[in-house]
Order: sequence, then structure tokens, then C-alpha cells
Amino acid sequence: MNRKGWAILMRSKMKPTTTTTNQHLFNKLPISNEVGLTKPSSQGNQFSQNPSSSMQNPERELKVVQASMHSSISTSKTDIIDSVLNDFSEGYFSLSIQKRQELLLVLAREYDVNRTQVRELIHQYLGLEPPVGEKGQASGLDESLLSAFYRTERNLRHALQPKYEILFERLNTHPGGLKFLTILRADLLSMLAKENIASLRALDSYLKEKLATWLSPAALELHHITWDDSASLLEKIVAYEAVHPISNLLDLKRRLGVGRRCFGYLHPAIPGEPLIFIEVALLKNVAQTIQEVLWDDPPTPESEASCALFYSISSTQPGLAGINLGKFLIKRVIELVKRDMPHVSTFATLSPIPGYMQWLLSKLASQSKLAESEAGYTPHMSDGRSGSTFRENILHPEEEAALMELSESFILLAIMIDAQQNTMTWEFSFGKNGMEVMWNLLTSRNYEWTSSERLLSVVQAPLMRLCARYLLQEKKRGKALDAVANFHLQNGAMVERLNWMADRSEKGLCQSGGIMVNYVYRMDKIEENAQSYFSEGHIQASSDLHSYIENELQGERVTGEN
Amino acid sequence: MNRKGWAILMRSKMKPTTTTTNQHLFNKLPISNEVGLTKPSSQGNQFSQNPSSSMQNPERELKVVQASMHSSISTSKTDIIDSVLNDFSEGYFSLSIQKRQELLLVLAREYDVNRTQVRELIHQYLGLEPPVGEKGQASGLDESLLSAFYRTERNLRHALQPKYEILFERLNTHPGGLKFLTILRADLLSMLAKENIASLRALDSYLKEKLATWLSPAALELHHITWDDSASLLEKIVAYEAVHPISNLLDLKRRLGVGRRCFGYLHPAIPGEPLIFIEVALLKNVAQTIQEVLWDDPPTPESEASCALFYSISSTQPGLAGINLGKFLIKRVIELVKRDMPHVSTFATLSPIPGYMQWLLSKLASQSKLAESEAGYTPHMSDGRSGSTFRENILHPEEEAALMELSESFILLAIMIDAQQNTMTWEFSFGKNGMEVMWNLLTSRNYEWTSSERLLSVVQAPLMRLCARYLLQEKKRGKALDAVANFHLQNGAMVERLNWMADRSEKGLCQSGGIMVNYVYRMDKIEENAQSYFSEGHIQASSDLHSYIENELQGERVTGEN
Repeated sequence: MNRKGWAILMRSKMKPTTTTTNQHLFNKLPISNEVGLTKPSSQGNQFSQNPSSSMQNPERELKVVQASMHSSISTSKTDIIDSVLNDFSEGYFSLSIQKRQELLLVLAREYDVNRTQVRELIHQYLGLEPPVGEKGQASGLDESLLSAFYRTERNLRHALQPKYEILFERLNTHPGGLKFLTILRADLLSMLAKENIASLRALDSYLKEKLATWLSPAALELHHITWDDSASLLEKIVAYEAVHPISNLLDLKRRLGVGRRCFGYLHPAIPGEPLIFIEVALLKNVAQTIQEVLWDDPPTPESEASCALFYSISSTQPGLAGINLGKFLIKRVIELVKRDMPHVSTFATLSPIPGYMQWLLSKLASQSKLAESEAGYTPHMSDGRSGSTFRENILHPEEEAALMELSESFILLAIMIDAQQNTMTWEFSFGKNGMEVMWNLLTSRNYEWTSSERLLSVVQAPLMRLCARYLLQEKKRGKALDAVANFHLQNGAMVERLNWMADRSEKGLCQSGGIMVNYVYRMDKIEENAQSYFSEGHIQASSDLHSYIENELQGERVTGEN
Repeated sequence: MNRKGWAILMRSKMKPTTTTTNQHLFNKLPISNEVGLTKPSSQGNQFSQNPSSSMQNPERELKVVQASMHSSISTSKTDIIDSVLNDFSEGYFSLSIQKRQELLLVLAREYDVNRTQVRELIHQYLGLEPPVGEKGQASGLDESLLSAFYRTERNLRHALQPKYEILFERLNTHPGGLKFLTILRADLLSMLAKENIASLRALDSYLKEKLATWLSPAALELHHITWDDSASLLEKIVAYEAVHPISNLLDLKRRLGVGRRCFGYLHPAIPGEPLIFIEVALLKNVAQTIQEVLWDDPPTPESEASCALFYSISSTQPGLAGINLGKFLIKRVIELVKRDMPHVSTFATLSPIPGYMQWLLSKLASQSKLAESEAGYTPHMSDGRSGSTFRENILHPEEEAALMELSESFILLAIMIDAQQNTMTWEFSFGKNGMEVMWNLLTSRNYEWTSSERLLSVVQAPLMRLCARYLLQEKKRGKALDAVANFHLQNGAMVERLNWMADRSEKGLCQSGGIMVNYVYRMDKIEENAQSYFSEGHIQASSDLHSYIENELQGERVTGEN
């Protein structure tokens, strides 16, 4: 590193926003709130707001960080390795997201597998006779020839490890390094979401394997989070709660108090910050609405509880996407609650259905378009997603009729609602068919359809029925399309019950039209369910859920007869 | 598994020596006391003493354990995996060492790399164009072709992992499994010490890599062991102390009391049992004898200490041989002591020289033989080890003369010593040359040479000089021949001082003629020393040590002139 490079590095170290310890640096990163989604663009923005480091001479800055990355991989002096790794991680955080991508491309391409060596070893390897021949007989080689074979095989295995393995391994044993690696992976995922670059994809897949090994359940500590925990830990619970945001301290205290439990998985190398946490309510019955769980007073006395309801599970590290820590957490929490409270016999969730509305609106738009183009008319709905080109009226005839009747009386309705709301802002567009009417209703600006008993009664039947279809039948690569459904199904749960108007928050209405779902964990069925979901994509559901689907099949048949 | 198999397994579970939890089983294993050496033969004996399980029908017993090993690897039902792994580990412990070896051979050979798949992937791989061509230019492939290349490479990497990887990974996350794996490796090492079997060697080398990853310093907790620790932990310190055995509770209490420190490395998966521990004495000066450290009263007041003396370091797990945990332990202890006691500036050891006598006796025997065969006479010394065939009088002329003079007056001496000791049992055989005399002296039954001032004064000069030569010049594959020397040198220490009659215990006399050595750790030199030892085999030593060697060179020159 030249003197100018050092000077820049020293200056960046003296910035008020950086400190000498990594941990503080990491605390300054914006906290991402979404399960499994990365938000590194905001990280990038944060750092690019600081013109003194990354903006004044970004090219030079990148060269300096690249030099410290090179040292981190290639130095053999273990006494300076800690300070080299600190330089590298500090430098990395000072880069904009664009520069980070350039740097990670260098890492992926220049510190990759040594393929010349691999090819040499492959030729050596192919020239040696294996311990068991092609036809399955022992080759009868003596031990020294066998030793040579095993040695070459081991060398080939080692040679196939990319050079960036060293960086990952060194960071894993470096204070703060594991956390750094999760942030680096979050960045990688956000880059790959925009553009698929094969070498970055390979880097990500390698890093993911490493992280999954290091974060094995054996290395994680289950922690019962209580009001007695440190403020810095509780602050993280508030910040990372992704399902039902915590509104104030009282709300938090209630979630940690009588009749409630909160458990987190901690890793020794990332102290004071659970990687994932779950919130549990102890209730008499499986709750139907989030209102009962979060707001209704007073809580059930714990001795009377027979149900442990998981009402929120939040992952705190976007960089751990695809590494299923939740499965082990749920299993351990069930074991713990069973041991401590033998009277609790039902383990269920009250879960959001985050992808339902997006799927439904896309379906309504594309099918309505198909219907109308056949009728020589193009409706004004627009939806970026391309739906099915196979025509299907997803509404039953009676639903279609009810929606069209609604549309015809729309002026009357608008006036009625206006009288209720004392406002004239609602624009209700009618439609040429039931699907268009429904699309217009559901996309109304302020979810006005939820304020009218008549509108609610008309849309409830199709919304509930199509929700069951979405959860049980809509798949992507053989797995449930809905991310939360896929999570609980792969953990071995079954779909138990749909709950109408269970979450009237804006988020709830936007994601799933206010519908929530109970998944149930039956300890004696967990493995069987997980297995048949994994191997055949089979989704276990209650007869209640199936009854919607039977209507659906009947409905299709009726449509076919029209 | 058939019904008979189950019956046998059930019976073995009901044996009084086994319990349902693994941890208890492990506690019943005999504790091995040697650093880096395994004693599984005693384990084997213990279990074979129980005729109800392994002896009545050993073949069937082996088949049952083999079946549970198979299930441990191949089952995909994660709910039964814990009980399957328990069955396997209990079954393993019920086997004799011979049956364990048969079982491990099955593991090594039948759960090895799938070489048919490897060969297929290699052919696929060789058919694909890499991202960077042979001449270093980017190949210009599009991203989808590159993806295919990276995917094949990853598949090949995975295919090169033997199937027993699954067993190791599963045991690592299973309660008690990590401990089981260390015992399994201890067994492997003892088998390999008797016979080199290539497939077992490959199994061991793979397991060692895995253990080294799982026991990375980041996963280990440094624990200050005190008198307030649990009896079960302190019991293990007593049992595993390998350098200076702890004679009673008072001795233990003293080693944990004022002026002393004891630190251990614990792994969360092996609770209550340090993997390695170090004992430290806080002193005014670097001690010359173990007497001063262990027995002399009272201890130095801690505020007056300027030296931290490491007088014992013991590894508790024979199955972790070759995985250097001590290096990190010493570095962390030095950092800790420096932080807490800034007045301590010297960090040194008082160490045994375990291989000195074995080397010296072999050298004396072979050289004396060579000398006498040239003189037409074969001395009656016998030593299994074949020495150098290159003739060298390892004694200086004045040492030779003093020893021969001793030999000529042996009757007088015997009488003198008899008068001192009031016994007639000492048989002192004289010799035809100085080396034979010395050999006879050193191998005398009860180390009688240490009771006579005259004998001591004659042998001191050659013993000290040859000890310096042994430590600084005798190498094996470029590293110090002495295991303890190699340990400290690879950690970056230097050889500081030899201490005459520093350990008069039987063990000390047998291993090194009572000589001990101080290694010194200079924080600013640790990495440099470790580096030059690692790359060039260079051994850092004080001028004091070098002065012995200079005499040695001079001695050789003198011998040459004779």
C-alpha cells in the first residue's frame, strides 16, 4: 500500500462516524426490518452521504480497500491478521453499494478456484486406480498405492475450494467478522436481485454454505427474552419485529409479560442480538384475530392456557436468507413450553398471508382482460405481472351476480358511503364483469370496501375461497407460492383455519385483504408432514380448508357448464 | 433390524454400566492422561470385560451397531435422528477395540466418496469452458454458460465429500456427539499407530479437518479455573494433569490459589470439561526447578511478580492430537495477564524434555557399538532403535577421560555408595569406552547416579551439552525432534535456558535425566519466530544455549583430530 493510500485510510479512520471497534461500526448500520429481504441500498446511501470518504476519490478508495482485502487473504502473519481484517471491514463499510459490487466482483473472479491446479490434479486422479474398481471389486492395491490415491483425492477436494474460502474462514474467527459476513451476503443478495452475475452467484452460494455450517443449531443458544434483558437487546426486538410492529414501550412490555413468551436464538460471535426471535401468546383457544392477541385485556391466566400461539417470527439478518433457523427455533420452543406447561397441548400460529393480494390482483387483471378481449373490450386495469393466458372465470356464478349487482347500484352506494364518512373523495369505478368490479373494489385507495357491511358481505365468499385456493394449490417449483406458508409447511405444520378480517391494519389489508391463517404444529405429525411436503409438495390442511377447495372445483364445473 | 437384534440392543441398554444419556456413558470412559497420546486399548479392555454385551455374540453385536451406523447416515427422518445417533454411540462403546476397528473400516470403505459420480462430473467439468481460459483471458461466455460451469464445479466439490461426512455433521450437532467424535478419533489414532491402513488414514484425516473447524478458537471460551469451580470440573483437572501429577487436594488448591492461575478452553458442546488447560505461577524470576514452583512456600506476593511462568499445559482429549489449541490458549493467557497485571513483563515456561533420554540412550548404544565393532568387541548394550551408522564419538575427550576414570574406580565407588546407602543392591557395570560407561550409568535401575555428587559432577557436562544439541539440532522432517520443543517453537517461543537437576521425580529423571528447559515468549517476536521456524525450521535460542553448541562443534573438531 502506498503512502497516499495509507493517508486516505487514516483519514477515513478519523471520521466521526467510524470508531476503532467493529462492533460500533455494525451498530451504525441501518437496521433492516423485513424477513428474508435485504435493504442494502439504504446502507449504500448512508455511506455515500459521507462525501469525505467514498465520494471525494472513490477510485482510490476502492483500490485501498482492495489492497486490504488482498492482505486479508494472502498474509501469513497471524499477528497482524486482526488489524488487516479490521482495515478491510472498515474500508468495506466506507464504500458505496456500487463500489462494493465492484469489489465483490474482484473477490469472486480473482480469488476463485485455481483451475490450472484443479485440471492437473484431475489428470493425476484419473490416472490412479481407485480402491474399488468400476465393477465394484476391491482393486487389490497395496496400502502405499491406496495412500497415494486418497492423498490425490484430498488434494483435489482442497483445490476445488476457492481462494476466498480463506477470507471467510478468517473473518469467522475474527471478532465481529461473522456479523460482517452476514452484511456482505445481504449486499450480494441485493446485487443478485437486480442482475444475475454467475461469479457473484457462485460466491453467494459458497458463502451461504459456510454460514449454514457456522450457524448450526448446536452453535446457537436459545434465550428467553424478558423485560429484565438489556435495553440494547430489547431495542433490537423493537427494531426487527417484522410482522406486527411494536408501537411503544407498553406494547413491548406486554409482549414480554404474563401470558406471553419471547424466545431468540443467539450466536456467541454476535452477542446481544438474536438472529431470529419468536413471540408466543398463551391462550385458552387458538386466536382468530391479531386484535385478541395484541390488544385485548387482560391476558389469560397462564394456568388456564391450553394453546401456545406463535403470532410473530422475525429474522434479524437479511444476510441469512435461505438458512432456515426458524424450524429449529419452533421445535425447541415447543419442547420447552411442553416441559414447563404440560397443560398446553395445542401449538398453532396466527400468520399473515403476505403474497395473497398480489397473486389475486394479478389473476383478476389478466383473467378480466382475457374475458373482455373476447368480448371486444379492453378494461382499463393495469398490472405489470403477466397472468395466465388460459381463460378461467375465477368467480362462481353467484359471486359474479352479486358483484355485478353491486356495480349497477354503484352511485347509490357511493352516496350511502359518503353519508357515513362525511367525505366525497371515494371514486368507485364499476366494471364490465365481476372480476373487474372486484379488482376495482380491492384497489380502492383507502380500503373503503372494508367500511361497508354490504361490500364486505359480497366480497367475503370469493376472497376466503380464493385464499384457500392460493394457499393450498398455487405453487412455485412444487412448493407453496406464499413465503410464510412455505416456511411453516416445510417445518411440518398444517393449514388449519382461515380467519376473516383478522388483521385490519393497513399492512394486513394490503397483503391479504385482512385475512389471516392459523397453521397448527402437531408434534407427532411434524416430521411426516415435512417429509411429504418436501418430497411430493403435499400440503396438509384441515377439512375446513378443503371444503373451500371442494366448492372451488364445483364452481369450476358450474362455470364449465355455462 | 430384526427382533433378535433389537433384543440384544435392549439388553445392552439395561446393563448396569450403561445409562440412557450419552454424557454418563462418556464419564465412564477411562480418562487418558498423556498429552497427544491415545490409550484406547484400555477402553477396549474395559468394555470387553463385560461379557454380556460384546463377548457373548460379538458378530451379532457388531451387525447391530453397523445397522444403527447405517441409519445414522441414511435416514432422512429428522425426528428419529437423535435416538438413532444415541443407539449408534451406545452400541459403539459396547464394542471391543477389535470390533470398533472392523466397524470403522466399514465406515471408511462403504461410506466413502461416490467415485462413479465423481468420474461422471469430472468428464462433464472437463467439457465445459472455464470463466478464464488457459491463457488467462476471460472466456467471454454468457452468464448462463458460466452458471452451468460454476454449478458443475460445485457439484464436483460436493461429490468429492465422502458419505461419512453426514455422520460427522450429524454427530456434531447432536448432544454429546462432539465428545463422541473425539473418542472415535482417539481410537482411529491408536489403530493407525499399530498398522497403517490407507482408508482409515483418509477417514482420520477427514475427521481431523472437521474437528479443527468445529474447535476454532472463536468457538472456544477461555475459563479462569478457580477453587470455586465445580468438583466435577476440578476432578478433571486432577485426572488430566499430564506434566506434574497433582498429589492431593491441598496441592490442587495451591495451584488455584494466590500467586497461581489456571486457565482452560471450554467448548459449549463439551460442558464442564476443558479441552486443554494451562497452569501459571506468578514469580519474581524465571524458576529453575519445579521444586520452587510446586512446593516452596510461601508464594510471591502477586504485586511483586514480574514473571508469569507456564509450568504445565495439558490436553485432555487424545482425539484432538494434531489440532493446536495450545497456541491460541497461550496467546490469550498472555494478553489477559498483561492486561490485568501490567507489572508482569516476562512470559516463560518451565518445561520437560520428554524425548531427550530416549534419543541419548539410542545414540550412546549405537555409537558405542560402532566404536567397539571397529575395535573387534561387541558391548552387551541392547537398544531396539537403530542409531546412525556414521561413526561419531559424541563425547568430548575430557568427558571420555572422566568417564573412563570413573569406570576404573567402579569397585571403590560401589563401596562408597554402599556405605552411603546402606545397601548392596546396586550393580554398576563398567564399560570399554566412555559412551558405554555413560549408558550403564544412565540406565542403572534406581537412578543411583543421581545420589552421588561425584557421578553427578562427571555426567553433568556431557548431559547438558548433549541436551542443547538435542533441542537445537536434532530434527525430524525439519522440525524439532522433541515434541514439547516443537510445540513451543511452532507457537513462536525461543529456547532460553537449561536447568540442571530441575525435576528429580522418577518421570523427570527417566525422560530427561532431571534436566528442564525454559522457553520464553517475547510478544514482539512470537510471530517472527513462529514464521521462521515454520518456513525454515529455524530454532531461536539464547546465547547461553548456543554456547553449548559452540563447544559441541569444537568437540567434534577435537574428535576428528584424534
